[in-house]
Amino acid sequence: MHADAPRRLLLTPGPLTTSDPTRAVLDRDWGSRDTDFIELTTRLRLRLTAIAGGTGTHETVLLPGSGTFAVEAALQSLVPRDGLVLLLVNGAYGRRMAEMLRRIGRLHVVREWAEDEQVDAGELDRMLMADASITDVAVVHCETTSGLLNPIEAVAAVVNRHGRRMLVDAMSSFGALPIDASAMHLTAVMASSNKGLEGVPGVGFVVVDSAHLAGCAGNSTSLSLDLYDQAEGFRRNGQWRFTPPVQVAAALDAALDQFDAEGGVAARGARYRRLHAMLVDGMRTLGFETYLSPELQAPIIVTFKDPGPPFEFEPFYDALQRAGIVIYPGKLTRAPSFRIGCIGAITEDDMRRALTVIGQHCRQ
Amino acid sequence: MHADAPRRLLLTPGPLTTSDPTRAVLDRDWGSRDTDFIELTTRLRLRLTAIAGGTGTHETVLLPGSGTFAVEAALQSLVPRDGLVLLLVNGAYGRRMAEMLRRIGRLHVVREWAEDEQVDAGELDRMLMADASITDVAVVHCETTSGLLNPIEAVAAVVNRHGRRMLVDAMSSFGALPIDASAMHLTAVMASSNKGLEGVPGVGFVVVDSAHLAGCAGNSTSLSLDLYDQAEGFRRNGQWRFTPPVQVAAALDAALDQFDAEGGVAARGARYRRLHAMLVDGMRTLGFETYLSPELQAPIIVTFKDPGPPFEFEPFYDALQRAGIVIYPGKLTRAPSFRIGCIGAITEDDMRRALTVIGQHCRQ
Repeated sequence: MHADAPRRLLLTPGPLTTSDPTRAVLDRDWGSRDTDFIELTTRLRLRLTAIAGGTGTHETVLLPGSGTFAVEAALQSLVPRDGLVLLLVNGAYGRRMAEMLRRIGRLHVVREWAEDEQVDAGELDRMLMADASITDVAVVHCETTSGLLNPIEAVAAVVNRHGRRMLVDAMSSFGALPIDASAMHLTAVMASSNKGLEGVPGVGFVVVDSAHLAGCAGNSTSLSLDLYDQAEGFRRNGQWRFTPPVQVAAALDAALDQFDAEGGVAARGARYRRLHAMLVDGMRTLGFETYLSPELQAPIIVTFKDPGPPFEFEPFYDALQRAGIVIYPGKLTRAPSFRIGCIGAITEDDMRRALTVIGQHCRQ
Repeated sequence: MHADAPRRLLLTPGPLTTSDPTRAVLDRDWGSRDTDFIELTTRLRLRLTAIAGGTGTHETVLLPGSGTFAVEAALQSLVPRDGLVLLLVNGAYGRRMAEMLRRIGRLHVVREWAEDEQVDAGELDRMLMADASITDVAVVHCETTSGLLNPIEAVAAVVNRHGRRMLVDAMSSFGALPIDASAMHLTAVMASSNKGLEGVPGVGFVVVDSAHLAGCAGNSTSLSLDLYDQAEGFRRNGQWRFTPPVQVAAALDAALDQFDAEGGVAARGARYRRLHAMLVDGMRTLGFETYLSPELQAPIIVTFKDPGPPFEFEPFYDALQRAGIVIYPGKLTRAPSFRIGCIGAITEDDMRRALTVIGQHCRQ
């Protein structure tokens, strides 16, 4: 289809660049109640649970739609109606969880840090000590707003010590950074098909603690987003309750084959770290500065400060787009910036090409 | 990919058989904030509004996920928090709307008919006369449970006369049966990508009365399913609020090109009626009876009575599946039955092949 065009690079937080073999499996129709699709669904669920380190303790509930739907489904379904959620927030995705809970009408308190600060486990410890009524703690693993990595292991240690539940939005980190749902006693890990797993967008999922899920009937005020009902459906007949995006699910299964062949989380994370290092080094050489200090940065997406005139973002964005390279505007509340992702089915050659195009534009 | 296999026929209520050109466009990555994807999104919205007869009065809000999500989004977003919904129910999809409203916590009354009876506009008239507090009436156009067509024009006339709002679940009829949202003063028409429009599954949509939508801020208790917020987003920058299933959306756009080339609703409906007549005639010749009397039947999916021994559904289903033909189990509450669909990118030759395979199995 694109034999005459340069390969399109989506250096964004998703949808991402996918591989040809992943997109190739989209070219098939599936009956959603067919044996082969039921097998595919079961296989997907087991594979995702294993990637989250949840085999034996957790189960994966798949959900059609955006990753955001999976985050809301987790809050809807796993927080009891009389629960109180403490949200640890340092960016737009943490704030979005607060908006979800406000809409659902579930009690929550928000502790917010600056967008260039990690959430602080010590402060969390004091808050949980002071308020025994907090039942759940929710946090974003990699805040795509800035590209910041939150210390979820330290947070989990505190939450576990206080005997509360913990939900992790691992949307952009899942598959790229290790997470051990079982060892960390996580109640839920939320993610989607089209980030580090390199599928196409259209499926979200939640890896849920099965023991907790068993008591979650009726929590959700949304039928569509009820993880308990969907988990029951998977148990009963292996089927999705509502029409699944069959092609998207099949592409995710194919993407997981490639994920395994590459070497799983360790190898995928290593490739992203190499791409991230190339990106940051190359941009620094061209005079750009990163927004975050290196020790806070996840190897997922990098926020660069807008250097100001003569640099202008719009022509920069357009020049890259003309070369088939898509980057992202900034999402910070305070500083003009832009973002470049380093995840997806891209190689070091791809990143080299992107840096060459950026360099050419900047030297004009 | 399938050069050696017989073409797969999904004679189900969806996912359906799609065309090669529709699946071909799945083989591309799109940035969700790219100009070309924003243009595709705008084009899709205008085309769907036009198919619903809503140009000038209505607008289309696209939503990732199952069609069911679009139905719930309409109930969440368009029924005021102090509204009272009258549900006209004669099958599982009507009952599902009751379950949604129960979960959301919105007042509703249910008037239920048997699964082989149309909803009755005269009875509706009496109910609206008797209860001025009913604000909204919701009904399913084609009840896929049985294959029954509800008389939405007569229902709309009554609803309009009483000055109430009307929401139509047109999931399986949209694109195949005419609907005129503007002339019928419909508040909402809910449908999805993968039925009569013959796209792949993963996008739902609601064609909404713009004047009503303007007052719907804050109705939805779900952030993910809020049509008002999503409509505002489309107006603001043409973008989906949350990661869209880009490939699925592109396939829907391609499917609409083929829809137009075929001749729109009239031609698509005519093809489905031809396929439906072939199916019913062929099955009758083989001794099967339809569950519904012909005047109640939509040309979408047909429920056949299970004739009893020596016929058994499981071996019948398996024999068809081995021949690449997928049918559907029954969904009736009262009678053993099975269903065969006559929609999707299928031809009369395809239906002839299906009937041949069915005949061969029945004569064994």
